[in-house]
Amino acid sequence: MRPAPVWLMRQAGRYLPEYRKLRASAGSFLDLCFSPGLAAEVTLQPVRRFGMDAAILFSDILTIPHALGQEVRFVEGTGPVLGPFDPGALQFANGRLDPVYETVRRVRKDLPDGVALIGFAGAPWTVAAYMVEGGSSRDWLKVRRMALGEPERFAALTDLLVEATIDHLSAQAEAGAEALQLFDSWAGLLPPAGIRRWCLEPAQRIAAGLAARHPSVPLILFPRGAGALAPEFAGVGACVGLDTTADPVWAAGAVQGRAVVQGNLDPMLLVIGGDAMERAAREILSALRCGPHIFNLGHGVLPATPPEHVAALRRIVREAV
Amino acid sequence: MRPAPVWLMRQAGRYLPEYRKLRASAGSFLDLCFSPGLAAEVTLQPVRRFGMDAAILFSDILTIPHALGQEVRFVEGTGPVLGPFDPGALQFANGRLDPVYETVRRVRKDLPDGVALIGFAGAPWTVAAYMVEGGSSRDWLKVRRMALGEPERFAALTDLLVEATIDHLSAQAEAGAEALQLFDSWAGLLPPAGIRRWCLEPAQRIAAGLAARHPSVPLILFPRGAGALAPEFAGVGACVGLDTTADPVWAAGAVQGRAVVQGNLDPMLLVIGGDAMERAAREILSALRCGPHIFNLGHGVLPATPPEHVAALRRIVREAV
Repeated sequence: MRPAPVWLMRQAGRYLPEYRKLRASAGSFLDLCFSPGLAAEVTLQPVRRFGMDAAILFSDILTIPHALGQEVRFVEGTGPVLGPFDPGALQFANGRLDPVYETVRRVRKDLPDGVALIGFAGAPWTVAAYMVEGGSSRDWLKVRRMALGEPERFAALTDLLVEATIDHLSAQAEAGAEALQLFDSWAGLLPPAGIRRWCLEPAQRIAAGLAARHPSVPLILFPRGAGALAPEFAGVGACVGLDTTADPVWAAGAVQGRAVVQGNLDPMLLVIGGDAMERAAREILSALRCGPHIFNLGHGVLPATPPEHVAALRRIVREAV
Repeated sequence: MRPAPVWLMRQAGRYLPEYRKLRASAGSFLDLCFSPGLAAEVTLQPVRRFGMDAAILFSDILTIPHALGQEVRFVEGTGPVLGPFDPGALQFANGRLDPVYETVRRVRKDLPDGVALIGFAGAPWTVAAYMVEGGSSRDWLKVRRMALGEPERFAALTDLLVEATIDHLSAQAEAGAEALQLFDSWAGLLPPAGIRRWCLEPAQRIAAGLAARHPSVPLILFPRGAGALAPEFAGVGACVGLDTTADPVWAAGAVQGRAVVQGNLDPMLLVIGGDAMERAAREILSALRCGPHIFNLGHGVLPATPPEHVAALRRIVREAV
């Protein structure tokens, strides 16, 4: 039996000294995302250091609103700040994302054989959440109100985002991405009917759009917080990413028969390391060992993570057969 | 068939003009919680206005840290701010909560026949989260790190909170509460092993402690964010409260055979009202109609809620048989 392949959400980023060094020499965060040389280097850093089985493109889910013409800035310590939300003015200018596709090409060229390159986009619901709120939010009241109370208006925004997402992911596949992940980080803000309408259905349309253009590129869905609804996503993508709360024993039965399962170590255990991390990682590997499994976290790497814990985790996964 | 009984989490509070009027004349938020005359009046307001089937004691989950000796303040616009967390200095002084039990007695005396009085406490994990973080938090990194990385230290805090919670809930039952709810609002921050150890197991110990003293008082558990793990709580409490994300069709099969199900309209739909609210409420009632069901929200009433939407919801539930 071969060990589960492993990569980690946010494996490139602030917890790595080589990232912080490069980051200090770049301009704004978006400048970094749009500088193919630097973004490719950042993408490759964790692959080089840890021997991950996949690289995930270094970029951001808010490149789509940027390409739609909504102003996007990243404020140190605050997070993303978006300009006024004017749905009538939005129009997807794919060309604004050319530097992202150039990054994909460069990474593909420099990646060792056998290391997959994963492209990604934010899912329409999650991207819409930032666009409507103008940034991150504690309660996300505006976007929840729009989705549940003005479904026609919200459907128009979702349609626009579905098309932009298909375009953006297709262009990544054309540039060399071998798998694509759709991050729906805020799926858990919605009630079940909302998850089906604003997360699941757009994912189906995106999957269909991609299948028509790139039938051999698998799609990974990550509906964070979808709880017991996560298995419904197994009918749509080739792979379902579990969040930290999901029980892998349950997912082995509920998801693994129909899709690859990805996940789902709590990133806090990667901060803690040692026996607690090892035990938890082994439990996940064991629960999912009889079906297809990509080892990952249940959410992104935390900035406080010691890189040596990531190296230890890499070894644990490789040796646990 | 009788209609499902209905009450709403945070049914007493800021969205009601009579509450805002009374609140303006009281001192701090904790002063209000500790003034039996005012707190009883606030508890009764929604019962009087809407004819709810149950009153829930007006109080706060942070009365327990207050009684343990940790400073608790409520800052307008910020939320709770707790003083330094010094586990060695914590000791439960039940007497500091006497005004709460006096509130319960007054409400019980004034409640119409057939209206139940529900007492409550925060669950140990959720209360510990506020105690360790010193208030609310975006990422709850400190308490997650302590729970997963220092389990022995965290177990000592949990033990203390389990005992305090049993005491506090027992005293409410003695004062006339006919059901008790344990709010575990932050269960979803933990991985499955953490939910079982820091949410489920303490709930079992609290349930056992209460059953020994008050065998006829049912316990309602509300493990918010527990996702597909929520059914595991059905073995512990008489009733499991579903959060907004849970699918009631799923819960009918997974929970209702072993426990009453409570829930779970999205509170945003109560802000929106009209057809969207009615349709969603009817779907929940229909999904859970073949087993025991208490109609409620999946989270607390939002401050922006128009009271007339609550009145409309009350009618919808009563008439949907």
